[in-house]
Amino acid sequence: MDFSYSEKVQRLIQKLSVFMEEHIYPNEKVYEQQLNEQDTRWSAVPPIIEELKKKAKQEGLWNLFLPDAQYGAGLSNLEYAPLCEIMGRSPIAPEVFNCNAPDTGNMEVLARYGSEEQKKRWLLPLLNGEIRSCFSMTEPDVASSDATNIQASIVRNGDEYVISGKKWWSSGAGDPRCKVAIVMGKTNPDAPKHEQQSMIIVPLDTPGVKIERMLSVFGYDHAPHGHAEITYEHVRVPKENIIWAEGKGFAIAQGRLGPGRIHHCMRLIGAAERALELMCQRVKKRVAFGKTLAEQGVIQDWIAQSRIEIEQARLLTLKAAYMMDTVGNKAAKTEIAMIKVVAPNVALKVIDRAIQAFGAAGVSDDVPLAAQWASARTLRLADGPDEVHKAQIAKLELKKYD
Amino acid sequence: MDFSYSEKVQRLIQKLSVFMEEHIYPNEKVYEQQLNEQDTRWSAVPPIIEELKKKAKQEGLWNLFLPDAQYGAGLSNLEYAPLCEIMGRSPIAPEVFNCNAPDTGNMEVLARYGSEEQKKRWLLPLLNGEIRSCFSMTEPDVASSDATNIQASIVRNGDEYVISGKKWWSSGAGDPRCKVAIVMGKTNPDAPKHEQQSMIIVPLDTPGVKIERMLSVFGYDHAPHGHAEITYEHVRVPKENIIWAEGKGFAIAQGRLGPGRIHHCMRLIGAAERALELMCQRVKKRVAFGKTLAEQGVIQDWIAQSRIEIEQARLLTLKAAYMMDTVGNKAAKTEIAMIKVVAPNVALKVIDRAIQAFGAAGVSDDVPLAAQWASARTLRLADGPDEVHKAQIAKLELKKYD
Amino acid sequence: MDFSYSEKVQRLIQKLSVFMEEHIYPNEKVYEQQLNEQDTRWSAVPPIIEELKKKAKQEGLWNLFLPDAQYGAGLSNLEYAPLCEIMGRSPIAPEVFNCNAPDTGNMEVLARYGSEEQKKRWLLPLLNGEIRSCFSMTEPDVASSDATNIQASIVRNGDEYVISGKKWWSSGAGDPRCKVAIVMGKTNPDAPKHEQQSMIIVPLDTPGVKIERMLSVFGYDHAPHGHAEITYEHVRVPKENIIWAEGKGFAIAQGRLGPGRIHHCMRLIGAAERALELMCQRVKKRVAFGKTLAEQGVIQDWIAQSRIEIEQARLLTLKAAYMMDTVGNKAAKTEIAMIKVVAPNVALKVIDRAIQAFGAAGVSDDVPLAAQWASARTLRLADGPDEVHKAQIAKLELKKYD
Amino acid sequence: MDFSYSEKVQRLIQKLSVFMEEHIYPNEKVYEQQLNEQDTRWSAVPPIIEELKKKAKQEGLWNLFLPDAQYGAGLSNLEYAPLCEIMGRSPIAPEVFNCNAPDTGNMEVLARYGSEEQKKRWLLPLLNGEIRSCFSMTEPDVASSDATNIQASIVRNGDEYVISGKKWWSSGAGDPRCKVAIVMGKTNPDAPKHEQQSMIIVPLDTPGVKIERMLSVFGYDHAPHGHAEITYEHVRVPKENIIWAEGKGFAIAQGRLGPGRIHHCMRLIGAAERALELMCQRVKKRVAFGKTLAEQGVIQDWIAQSRIEIEQARLLTLKAAYMMDTVGNKAAKTEIAMIKVVAPNVALKVIDRAIQAFGAAGVSDDVPLAAQWASARTLRLADGPDEVHKAQIAKLELKKYD
Repeated sequence: MDFSYSEKVQRLIQKLSVFMEEHIYPNEKVYEQQLNEQDTRWSAVPPIIEELKKKAKQEGLWNLFLPDAQYGAGLSNLEYAPLCEIMGRSPIAPEVFNCNAPDTGNMEVLARYGSEEQKKRWLLPLLNGEIRSCFSMTEPDVASSDATNIQASIVRNGDEYVISGKKWWSSGAGDPRCKVAIVMGKTNPDAPKHEQQSMIIVPLDTPGVKIERMLSVFGYDHAPHGHAEITYEHVRVPKENIIWAEGKGFAIAQGRLGPGRIHHCMRLIGAAERALELMCQRVKKRVAFGKTLAEQGVIQDWIAQSRIEIEQARLLTLKAAYMMDTVGNKAAKTEIAMIKVVAPNVALKVIDRAIQAFGAAGVSDDVPLAAQWASARTLRLADGPDEVHKAQIAKLELKKYD
Repeated sequence: MDFSYSEKVQRLIQKLSVFMEEHIYPNEKVYEQQLNEQDTRWSAVPPIIEELKKKAKQEGLWNLFLPDAQYGAGLSNLEYAPLCEIMGRSPIAPEVFNCNAPDTGNMEVLARYGSEEQKKRWLLPLLNGEIRSCFSMTEPDVASSDATNIQASIVRNGDEYVISGKKWWSSGAGDPRCKVAIVMGKTNPDAPKHEQQSMIIVPLDTPGVKIERMLSVFGYDHAPHGHAEITYEHVRVPKENIIWAEGKGFAIAQGRLGPGRIHHCMRLIGAAERALELMCQRVKKRVAFGKTLAEQGVIQDWIAQSRIEIEQARLLTLKAAYMMDTVGNKAAKTEIAMIKVVAPNVALKVIDRAIQAFGAAGVSDDVPLAAQWASARTLRLADGPDEVHKAQIAKLELKKYD
Repeated sequence: MDFSYSEKVQRLIQKLSVFMEEHIYPNEKVYEQQLNEQDTRWSAVPPIIEELKKKAKQEGLWNLFLPDAQYGAGLSNLEYAPLCEIMGRSPIAPEVFNCNAPDTGNMEVLARYGSEEQKKRWLLPLLNGEIRSCFSMTEPDVASSDATNIQASIVRNGDEYVISGKKWWSSGAGDPRCKVAIVMGKTNPDAPKHEQQSMIIVPLDTPGVKIERMLSVFGYDHAPHGHAEITYEHVRVPKENIIWAEGKGFAIAQGRLGPGRIHHCMRLIGAAERALELMCQRVKKRVAFGKTLAEQGVIQDWIAQSRIEIEQARLLTLKAAYMMDTVGNKAAKTEIAMIKVVAPNVALKVIDRAIQAFGAAGVSDDVPLAAQWASARTLRLADGPDEVHKAQIAKLELKKYD
Repeated sequence: MDFSYSEKVQRLIQKLSVFMEEHIYPNEKVYEQQLNEQDTRWSAVPPIIEELKKKAKQEGLWNLFLPDAQYGAGLSNLEYAPLCEIMGRSPIAPEVFNCNAPDTGNMEVLARYGSEEQKKRWLLPLLNGEIRSCFSMTEPDVASSDATNIQASIVRNGDEYVISGKKWWSSGAGDPRCKVAIVMGKTNPDAPKHEQQSMIIVPLDTPGVKIERMLSVFGYDHAPHGHAEITYEHVRVPKENIIWAEGKGFAIAQGRLGPGRIHHCMRLIGAAERALELMCQRVKKRVAFGKTLAEQGVIQDWIAQSRIEIEQARLLTLKAAYMMDTVGNKAAKTEIAMIKVVAPNVALKVIDRAIQAFGAAGVSDDVPLAAQWASARTLRLADGPDEVHKAQIAKLELKKYD
């Protein structure tokens, strides 16, 4: 188990860090301003984003997430980990490097399971950052943490599939550039449990696709990206839009979720690191009751505890990444489940301490803490709630004693 | 220590509960709709509020917070506790009963320390729910948890006082009905530490008062109430606007904060109760992995833990209220400090569990959980951060062994 | 809900506190010395105990636990609470006042359910402190937290019952003065689930009773009291020894466990208070890194947290006691379950912090902390593990929404 | 950062695991029996120990802790980590492999700083397992976590040093084979703060050395090893007994404590692993309320949480070991401090859950859990309390922002 960084990775870390300092952090406020100056926060993507994307592409900081060497950077999960962590430090960073969810997961699905035609039509513009995509799996009416509950139907009708169902948390659908959804639904309710579901490509301008509303996250609308509730009403797409084959929905989801989950974890560690950094800087300057907050024992305890938790979470992420690279996503499932539980909880604790150290400023948007807390909180639910992952870990542990 | 409810209180509990069921819960969504249908969320107060206020007044559910029998309902803290808890169940409720912060604290200050003229000019319209008020104490540039840090100046000049300073978290200043601020600042920097500060009444339309912007709380703007950053630039008010006397700022703050803190705690217990109720209802219906969530051991553990925590927090609140009534706010300071630490943390834990039980819906605004979580989170900071209260509790505990 | 202390109780609190200062605390070390000077720690009860018992009896500090006014002090649970808490401050105290488990529970069973003959033969000498008793319910081979698992058999045979089974954690059986056991076992395996079990009186010198060994608790042997593993092999006792009637084992257990559980909780609060007291005294004197431990922020946080937790646990205990007094043990079952979970966990946390503040001395027997921690730890298991109580609390909570 | 195991280490892991299964676990009870069959538990070392030591030596499982290739196995910290973890699974194991504290630390001190004469006289018999040693640093009268508090004096007098002072927690001094102490004390109270202390070798049969008593740990006497309080009263030893040189006490302590601390952590992870294993085996068999404990959601949560915590603690231990090997103990001080905080706390949590799953058996000595819990608890204090390490971590973290 070798966690050392190759020279290539070290160069990328260095380059990426410089880019963050020069172009990302100083533009976080610019992004917010541009967003708020528009007619509505949903009208358009703040222009700064496309400017920065161009710069990132020029620097070669582009599609680093994709292990596929033909389409992406060809980095292993372990190599990508420190880079993704750095991107996670800023809410606006991942997209600038074309490494933001759910596009990353969708691109990975298309790269691994898509037909040549699908790749040409959808993967390439996504890789170029020309369009965006969303992923329609979760449904409001059932506990979607148990994927067998998914009710949307995908019915073959001649040369077409007809899709009907209600989805929500289709993140990214608010973006004016979002052109396509990957939809999960049942093609065959009578098949064995794990072969009932399929994934299919649905262009968002297909008749019958209706974006009902945007959901908020702890008061954040996350415009213009957004989290959409979408009704698919008798939506017809050509039969060629099915991904891989009928009944492969589960298999694809498994393949998609492993990397998706660990990317979230890497970003969360970056968010936690930044919160710790902000907290340290703050407490060294702020004075109460005759000394700086940094001199208060309780604050020191928070800093130590945060450093300890981050360090352990990062090591576990690296181990999971290493195992995905060496023994595969399936054999690494305990590790992926563990880090999926650990990373959001660590980030939440560290960010919460930082908020407390900032006082009232901490809950506002003057510092990025509250926003990052809210995003981290969703990740105790997204891609499976903590409890489902823990039940899985326990099951695997108990199995050792059969 | 007798926590029994008198017949009068039982009647009020009954009446208030019915009002909540009939008029408050069904109108929570109406409130949001009316707010969003306006030009901006800041344009006006949703009309439903004034309708409900009228109803509440007719029912005698009005100004229950004010122990003063001449101006208010004349209830003791202990008597008010169960009523305030019920109001805390809904974010829109307290205002409907004219019991919302910071008006309650401001009315209490005016009732206790105001001149007859001040009462006539400001207290009466507040008691009638005709105007609203804000409280300008916290400052962005200093750690305001240590009130000796407060920098705003209040300088006597002839028959006037001139106020200069920068305040934030002046909650309620966004409301179009908000007409007046109580401002804390230094009248005499050379006086003994606790006699430097004064409180003064500043009508918001006085030249030099500038509302700079509204702060958000975890993405919530809390419109139209709002949390304002206000600049006071050479603001001149008549010398009669000083409350009580020069140098009494601290003394008033002490008197104001005791009841204010415990009211927050009562409301938080109500918020926690409602979260537990929503969680129980949800888990009985939702099915995952072949059984209802209510049958899952971990969920049961959350429910039990929540019930245990709420029960203890409520008892401690009642004890603090009882002591305030019997030995006074000063002698009850340990109890007030304790409950100020306990209630927000309990509410946060209970609400967070409910959010988790609701899945993705929990972080959205389809249920009131995320919003109540965000409000509860601010109360680990507002009126003093946990850490300041704990330091105080420890100090008093250690003193026993001097 | 009135938690005020009557004058009678206040006098008893005063008297008891003086007794503790004068006779209990100074003799804790004497007790240990006398115990260790014997041939073995099991040979006899340290003489100091009987001396102190005599004194306590003279002072009227005797059998305060027993609500029955004929046989005991006639105090309600609420009245006994502050007294029992004080006794809980010292591991040697409860016996001195004839208020120690399991004798209290056994006396209560005999007073409530015993025949006149049983009372004469066993209750009176127990009330006089002449003999001691044990309670044989838990079995090593089954999860006894689920009492339907209990396997010992009690078979009617002519005018006798024949008892066979293996019991452990029969606490007190090591005491040379322990003369009798109350044994729970099955009289009728075919009866409805809650009528299969009975309780029966077994003099310890009956042939077939064999004390196999003494179990230790985190290294403590608790000599000479002890926790025995006992084999009952065809033990014959007269049929009159059955308590109440055949099949009433469960009903008695329910009646016995309510008060037993809450007494444990009261004592635990006393133990926690003492730990906090010891911690405060210690940290005011001990110096490290240039200041007293009392000046360290983290230590202050422990003290505040401890005070907060104790205060809440005490209020919840009082509420449970009040409800037992007013609506009965059955209607108070949620409250009893809650406090049974809360009190041991609070005591463990407070004592653990005190241990940490004492450094290495804390884990030794130079201070009573480690011993009290170990005893408190058993109470997360004894009379039902936390998890069983929490499942019960959740069940009752969820029932509200049926 | 490469955590892979070399072939050599893998062979040792395999061999050691087999040895544990064949010789250690089956003899844990034998050890206890032999100890209790003696006149007193302090009379002699149970014979099984020396038998097992012989076997271990024959197998080459000997002195694996010592990185020095001349005197020990020549393994790096990283290589030793998995081996030490395995030894930590059983309280009787470390001594069998001559890898138990405090001898390991003492041998390391002698190997690194001892004179040739000192090595011959003391190191060789220790390496051969012929004698044992203790370490006299901690003092009852001062907070020894702050080593500048140490008061014992070491005064040069002609060709001798005279040692006077009171020490406690001199672990191992109870062992009849314990022949020598390394004592820390002040040679020069006027020197700069970190050059006042020295370490010196004191044969235990020197006149003036008096073992006052043995301290217990949560009721455990840890006989025959023991934790001694020792008075050194005008104890005279030749001047050659000083280690390295006068004033080097601190420097040696720093060198000694790094490896000592991490060895404790490795063993704690082994103890935690064993507790998890025992818990899993138990819950699969035990039935309550109609299903095995393994099927209870709360138990599954404990298992998952335990696996997660152990995994992270192990990775952090390996990182600290790796850094000690590559950049040195001094540069690894944050990592050593972090793991010193993490490992005991993780072990305590995991063992505590296992105890709870075992019910009453868990607190007894029928399973090794209670004993291992007690030992783990001391390690939140030994070699520095958590709080001192956390303060150090915070200091180093804050320094980054100077």
